[in-house]
Amino acid sequence: MKIYQKSITLPPFPRGFHLVTERIVSQFPELSKINTGLLNIFIQHTSASLTINENADPTVRKDFESHMNKMVPENAPYYEHTIEGPDDMPAHIKASLMGASVQVPVTNGRLNLGTWQGIYLCEHRDHVSGRRLVLTVYGS
Amino acid sequence: MKIYQKSITLPPFPRGFHLVTERIVSQFPELSKINTGLLNIFIQHTSASLTINENADPTVRKDFESHMNKMVPENAPYYEHTIEGPDDMPAHIKASLMGASVQVPVTNGRLNLGTWQGIYLCEHRDHVSGRRLVLTVYGS
Amino acid sequence: MKIYQKSITLPPFPRGFHLVTERIVSQFPELSKINTGLLNIFIQHTSASLTINENADPTVRKDFESHMNKMVPENAPYYEHTIEGPDDMPAHIKASLMGASVQVPVTNGRLNLGTWQGIYLCEHRDHVSGRRLVLTVYGS
Repeated sequence: MKIYQKSITLPPFPRGFHLVTERIVSQFPELSKINTGLLNIFIQHTSASLTINENADPTVRKDFESHMNKMVPENAPYYEHTIEGPDDMPAHIKASLMGASVQVPVTNGRLNLGTWQGIYLCEHRDHVSGRRLVLTVYGS
Repeated sequence: MKIYQKSITLPPFPRGFHLVTERIVSQFPELSKINTGLLNIFIQHTSASLTINENADPTVRKDFESHMNKMVPENAPYYEHTIEGPDDMPAHIKASLMGASVQVPVTNGRLNLGTWQGIYLCEHRDHVSGRRLVLTVYGS
Repeated sequence: MKIYQKSITLPPFPRGFHLVTERIVSQFPELSKINTGLLNIFIQHTSASLTINENADPTVRKDFESHMNKMVPENAPYYEHTIEGPDDMPAHIKASLMGASVQVPVTNGRLNLGTWQGIYLCEHRDHVSGRRLVLTVYGS
């Protein structure tokens, strides 16, 4: 069993859901050294998140943003944490609903995703800078 | 540390939430070789998902389906990804809310679940075929 | 690669979202033996859950509770699993939305969380006892 870990920073993305599979894989060549294993991708933020979903039609990512905004609306009357702007508290809730990390099986040095799967960065804030990820791959 | 990985296919299940703990464990005898470790179960699809919840009363699974249909409705006016049918875009959103993988501790060669915990396959589509899982167990 | 696993019990917390990072770390000194790795924290219950979110302002945790109660209300007319009280079925759904486990990178014997990240215990029931966690850390 081997383990490799690396921190990378994704550039700022606009609020919404974005495919970042290739950006991650291309920055982590150690992946190819693992024959059988798992990759953990962890985001070090609480107003952006990671998920795995459809990698083909961009309207899927648009509809994610539309629905998450409906399901976790801005300016709900019960929010008390409002000082950082109307997008802040919804961003925290959306981040926990999606999650701070994803795990992907690694097989023969490559991510063993399904045909239609890709890794999404979910950016929940209006004004952002880059987002730090910690990548950890391990296995034989 | 040892690691074992296997792909299996679950048979088609109707739309809804289904207990699949035994189907998974019975197809992965390598589990018994791990004294202290973790099992990762990964689903290679974007319109079905995995979660861990109550393993006893079937009405819990029915209520999950009812509430997820309310929380992520079909035919929302803002959906643009509609060509594959009214159940398609909600399926993608539900899949990310539940998640593409679960991790379960392994202790003495067995899943160390709580008394009332079981693994659910969450089938979000109306018409489905089998669902592919990648099982990875590792530890000492 | 090394692996350590330990079961601990958190004391009863009132319904709501609670920061428990230090309670977990202080009970798992084996963490310091891992230079590069991951910590998995698993909750052995189906009406409480774990997530990672903002570790500073207590109103964030209050707003989480308010919004989750709105998004997964008690007494929905379609619930059939009602015998254990109005908070029971919502607790199951909230638990799956948040998740039964979190993974955190470990670097130089410490959790490699972002500056503003902490681990939350999400207690979804009104009347609870302690909550059992299984901690598993592994790496080099």
